[in-house]
Amino acid sequence: MPQNTQAMLQTHPNPGSVFDQGALAACIDACFECAQVCTSCADACLSEQGHLMHLVHCIRLNFDCADVCGATGRVLSRLTQPDQNVLRAQLQACLAACQACGNECEMHARDMNMQHCAVCAESCRRCEQACQQLLGSTSA
Amino acid sequence: MPQNTQAMLQTHPNPGSVFDQGALAACIDACFECAQVCTSCADACLSEQGHLMHLVHCIRLNFDCADVCGATGRVLSRLTQPDQNVLRAQLQACLAACQACGNECEMHARDMNMQHCAVCAESCRRCEQACQQLLGSTSA
Amino acid sequence: MPQNTQAMLQTHPNPGSVFDQGALAACIDACFECAQVCTSCADACLSEQGHLMHLVHCIRLNFDCADVCGATGRVLSRLTQPDQNVLRAQLQACLAACQACGNECEMHARDMNMQHCAVCAESCRRCEQACQQLLGSTSA
Amino acid sequence: MPQNTQAMLQTHPNPGSVFDQGALAACIDACFECAQVCTSCADACLSEQGHLMHLVHCIRLNFDCADVCGATGRVLSRLTQPDQNVLRAQLQACLAACQACGNECEMHARDMNMQHCAVCAESCRRCEQACQQLLGSTSA
Repeated sequence: MPQNTQAMLQTHPNPGSVFDQGALAACIDACFECAQVCTSCADACLSEQGHLMHLVHCIRLNFDCADVCGATGRVLSRLTQPDQNVLRAQLQACLAACQACGNECEMHARDMNMQHCAVCAESCRRCEQACQQLLGSTSA
Repeated sequence: MPQNTQAMLQTHPNPGSVFDQGALAACIDACFECAQVCTSCADACLSEQGHLMHLVHCIRLNFDCADVCGATGRVLSRLTQPDQNVLRAQLQACLAACQACGNECEMHARDMNMQHCAVCAESCRRCEQACQQLLGSTSA
Repeated sequence: MPQNTQAMLQTHPNPGSVFDQGALAACIDACFECAQVCTSCADACLSEQGHLMHLVHCIRLNFDCADVCGATGRVLSRLTQPDQNVLRAQLQACLAACQACGNECEMHARDMNMQHCAVCAESCRRCEQACQQLLGSTSA
Repeated sequence: MPQNTQAMLQTHPNPGSVFDQGALAACIDACFECAQVCTSCADACLSEQGHLMHLVHCIRLNFDCADVCGATGRVLSRLTQPDQNVLRAQLQACLAACQACGNECEMHARDMNMQHCAVCAESCRRCEQACQQLLGSTSA
């Protein structure tokens, strides 16, 4: 599926950002993708009849991560007159949520052979790194 | 950016759906993409200094569409014990939101040469068609 | 806690609405409240160790209802240049989600003595009725 | 309108929290209320025909604050097996968003006599203080 994230940043009347534009587009995409995948992983865990009791913490973290990534993706999608404190604090929260959820999913992928957790851990790691990179980037 | 939507559907312990799986994955992706692009288009419109007064209706519809697509994408991402009435009613709402926003953006792209509106109209149309197709599909 | 919903509608520069203003404020409040309560009920169900397997459908409907009510509450909070098709279709989806979730929670409150489901059913019924009333109302 | 937030916390099968329960209920309510009011204030600003150009920064901060408060309210509504890092980081982000938006709205209420901004500033301040209090509280 084509992603229009980059096209939207490029056609913005005021495309300057506090962040590097490539890193920004990557982070927006990673946030929306992680929100989708975490919503999906919580639901997959909920259908794991024999293992449900062991997946309660995972479901909890999936939902937190989906909510936090969703809000972060929306905040980052705006370029108009941002507040740097808000951007940075929300990126820090997104980092924390992706880290916690990625760790938990990685464990279930390894120890319980949960394939959906393996996919979800990958999306969490990508989003975690994209947030880290964005926090370290500055626009020219 | 790789999309893990399909991978999540395929690793779900209970992958049966009331909808065809390919059409479902396409619609989930279209919903999340449209939520991002509409958030971005509202912000781009807000930065159009000379034209802002003419873009108020567009901003309004962008926000409605972003909210409705976001909720629809989350509801569709769940396969576990769905309620068909909820799924169908939310898909109908998503169709209406994408249609209204797509029409408005198309007009601004054509009459005011707004490039971000052209990109947004494309995402709205894709999501509108994906919802239409999903409403018409049934799983084998 | 004081609710500022009504105060916001009254201080809006353009307070006319396609709906009756009292019914609108009640429905906005009911949507946000139901989104909170359904999020909370899904989490309470997830902590019901001995009964978790019987609450999977309830958790599923709680999440759908939370997402749909959240989006509906945001769409209704806007008065500026609305699209009636979008408003009505989203209200229909909200009705369907509250009905499905309210029915399920009512059953668990009655048959399994789940107190959080009893509270949640009450919020779902209030929101369902508020949507119904709004769909039947027209502004003077 | 009755708020069921407290009732949901009290009927939770596992009501212990990392936070004091009264402070938690107050903060959840403040987050959902602020999400509603900020959505409404952005829309009211968008309808201020003569002043729209001066309200662009306010609209931007309203939307950030609505998104961040919405996500925070959902994360806080869960008691099951939380991750303290995620909770604290998201509360910090909510504090930052409410502070930025509250400052901007306060200015427009004072200098431009914007009544909706006065109401919104009040909701932002209440949410800011509720986050601060929650970050300082610990459960017995």
